[in-house]
Amino acid sequence: MEQWRLTLSGERLRAVYHITGNREEAEERTRAICIEQTVEVPEEVIPDGEIRDNIVGRLVSLREIGEQTHEAIIDYAIEVAGAELTQLLNNLFGNTSLKPGIRLVTFDLPPGLAAHYKGPRFGRAGLRKLVQVDDRPLLATAIKPMGLSPKQLADLAYSFALGGIDLIKDDHGLADQSFSRFEERVERCAAAVHRANGENGGHSLYLANVTGPVDEFVDRARFAKRHGAGGFLFSAGLTGFDAMRRLADDDSIALPILLHPAFLGFFTTSPSEGISPEAVYGRIARLAGADGTIFPSYGGRFAFTPEQCRAIVHDTECDFGGLESIFPVAGGGMTLERVPEIVEFYGKEAILLIGGDLQRHGPDLVENCRGFIASAREACP
Amino acid sequence: MEQWRLTLSGERLRAVYHITGNREEAEERTRAICIEQTVEVPEEVIPDGEIRDNIVGRLVSLREIGEQTHEAIIDYAIEVAGAELTQLLNNLFGNTSLKPGIRLVTFDLPPGLAAHYKGPRFGRAGLRKLVQVDDRPLLATAIKPMGLSPKQLADLAYSFALGGIDLIKDDHGLADQSFSRFEERVERCAAAVHRANGENGGHSLYLANVTGPVDEFVDRARFAKRHGAGGFLFSAGLTGFDAMRRLADDDSIALPILLHPAFLGFFTTSPSEGISPEAVYGRIARLAGADGTIFPSYGGRFAFTPEQCRAIVHDTECDFGGLESIFPVAGGGMTLERVPEIVEFYGKEAILLIGGDLQRHGPDLVENCRGFIASAREACP
Repeated sequence: MEQWRLTLSGERLRAVYHITGNREEAEERTRAICIEQTVEVPEEVIPDGEIRDNIVGRLVSLREIGEQTHEAIIDYAIEVAGAELTQLLNNLFGNTSLKPGIRLVTFDLPPGLAAHYKGPRFGRAGLRKLVQVDDRPLLATAIKPMGLSPKQLADLAYSFALGGIDLIKDDHGLADQSFSRFEERVERCAAAVHRANGENGGHSLYLANVTGPVDEFVDRARFAKRHGAGGFLFSAGLTGFDAMRRLADDDSIALPILLHPAFLGFFTTSPSEGISPEAVYGRIARLAGADGTIFPSYGGRFAFTPEQCRAIVHDTECDFGGLESIFPVAGGGMTLERVPEIVEFYGKEAILLIGGDLQRHGPDLVENCRGFIASAREACP
Repeated sequence: MEQWRLTLSGERLRAVYHITGNREEAEERTRAICIEQTVEVPEEVIPDGEIRDNIVGRLVSLREIGEQTHEAIIDYAIEVAGAELTQLLNNLFGNTSLKPGIRLVTFDLPPGLAAHYKGPRFGRAGLRKLVQVDDRPLLATAIKPMGLSPKQLADLAYSFALGGIDLIKDDHGLADQSFSRFEERVERCAAAVHRANGENGGHSLYLANVTGPVDEFVDRARFAKRHGAGGFLFSAGLTGFDAMRRLADDDSIALPILLHPAFLGFFTTSPSEGISPEAVYGRIARLAGADGTIFPSYGGRFAFTPEQCRAIVHDTECDFGGLESIFPVAGGGMTLERVPEIVEFYGKEAILLIGGDLQRHGPDLVENCRGFIASAREACP
């Protein structure tokens, strides 16, 4: 005889969804979420007792918040999400991601779940300490375009560091191509940034893009660290968020990580489906161990509104299972001219990412960088 | 002095996008894709020569295909995608995924890229050989609901196998929870299916859900194989597609894989953004090594149309870099009553996935399964 009893702690994970439709449709869709995200069987097949009462998602509240829009709060036994980020995401929105008219807006991280996540290793405070900057937003740029030789890329990195940029990252399209071999690029760029730091007494970090195959990215990170990289760029949309969590959790690596939004757009392009920008770039980024979260700021080449950007900032620093607050990194076609406005909007606790525009602004890169810094400092209250 | 020369083979990767907007907007957006997906710098910063001529994406054609909709064909030097699935996806749609009004519809796999991908290990022919079924679609079901004990789940698996279901998979929500430990569940379920096979002379396979943390899924797959699992269920939306590729490529594991669509809905919910269902469930699934690709069939709980389902089927079997054809697996709320219609629609070269409805159809599970098989066989021409 099997000795077995379904035992639940009673602790619940709470998720908020926006549902399109009238009241009746919203009720039907809400009930469908409760089942779809857990037992996934027809109503009449759900066993009575603990499974029906506590494993099936539970409706906490449903209220109209706009025309044809309802907010549903649903909670789940934390045991459904278990101890794994993959299953937590599955629990929150796995199959429901396939349904029209349902958007995951936010979720909390109760202590019983938070215990499974280390979150950001550095966070805002840790990253500030590494670059030794207290009095202004941090500044970041990217070495590009792809197709330049490793030496040319390293020369760019050198100029950026000499100009005092805090975080100098690989462009997210630099992987391990025949024209941009990972190892040679990383060795040269890390060395170039160290050389500049030696010359100007700065503390710039070179962030290597270690996004890559699941069986190689940890080795790349180790290689980069061994050769003097100061952190990583990581496109979790391409690798899955859990790969970033793996990288962040590794005590033998222990360098800061910027999350890059490549291949993450799917979550946020539809207003009535997907996941809210703040949940993706704020909460999930923190869960997965990012120290900074790059997102397309309003007014650039992409489409987030100022309100969405504000919501992202909020979720980078709100109380969330005790995880560290992280830097919002405003990117996506920012320009030097807009620095005062961007600093006014984001304040001091942000990273400004300016890529191509730094190279467009006259031939003296070092001067351009200094102008960038002066302008950011000046804009700070 | 650096000895370095940017050398490209001349071979190109071709991608098709649908662009929302009038002619002028489409031209502007198309040019933006060519830059965004490669060099990602302002037009005037792009170096002349190979980078401007051949690294930047090249517009092959742009034509109006509907009101406010254009089809853009763009090709890229295959060296940009390199030898990695993560970078191939990044090249096709990384940053552009963040932009409104642009959808990736399809892409090809030229020989120089195909050489880097093993693709499906079994494919349709290999999977048919394993289950020894030639004359009808394959049949699949899931053990659920979560919250049942490992023994209860194994009892279900036993009945399904005794009833002759070809593929008996873990529900995708069964991970490694306190109430459903991976190892105990897999041991019991694999043993139950083997016992049933011994009794009825069948060749049912138990597919263990090995979706999980990036540093654990390979070990889970090895454990499952060692304990008699016949294949895997894998939710690549939760892990990233490259994790599935890693699993499929491992010669020491070498079992068939069904791709589950959990957390993949983001790609397809918006009609004017994201990636087409056929590219996701057909082409990318094959690139990443799935032998069968589960998708929500028309008429179930989800939202694909018959046309979209037909396009998926096409892309599971079309010429694509020489990769094996794979099974479309029609799921998502299918019922026993609909078997004749589903078989008529998909034909013999498909897998029918019926989950909860098998359990709803009367208390004798074994009989329900036999009815399912009889009905599928009868519907075959």
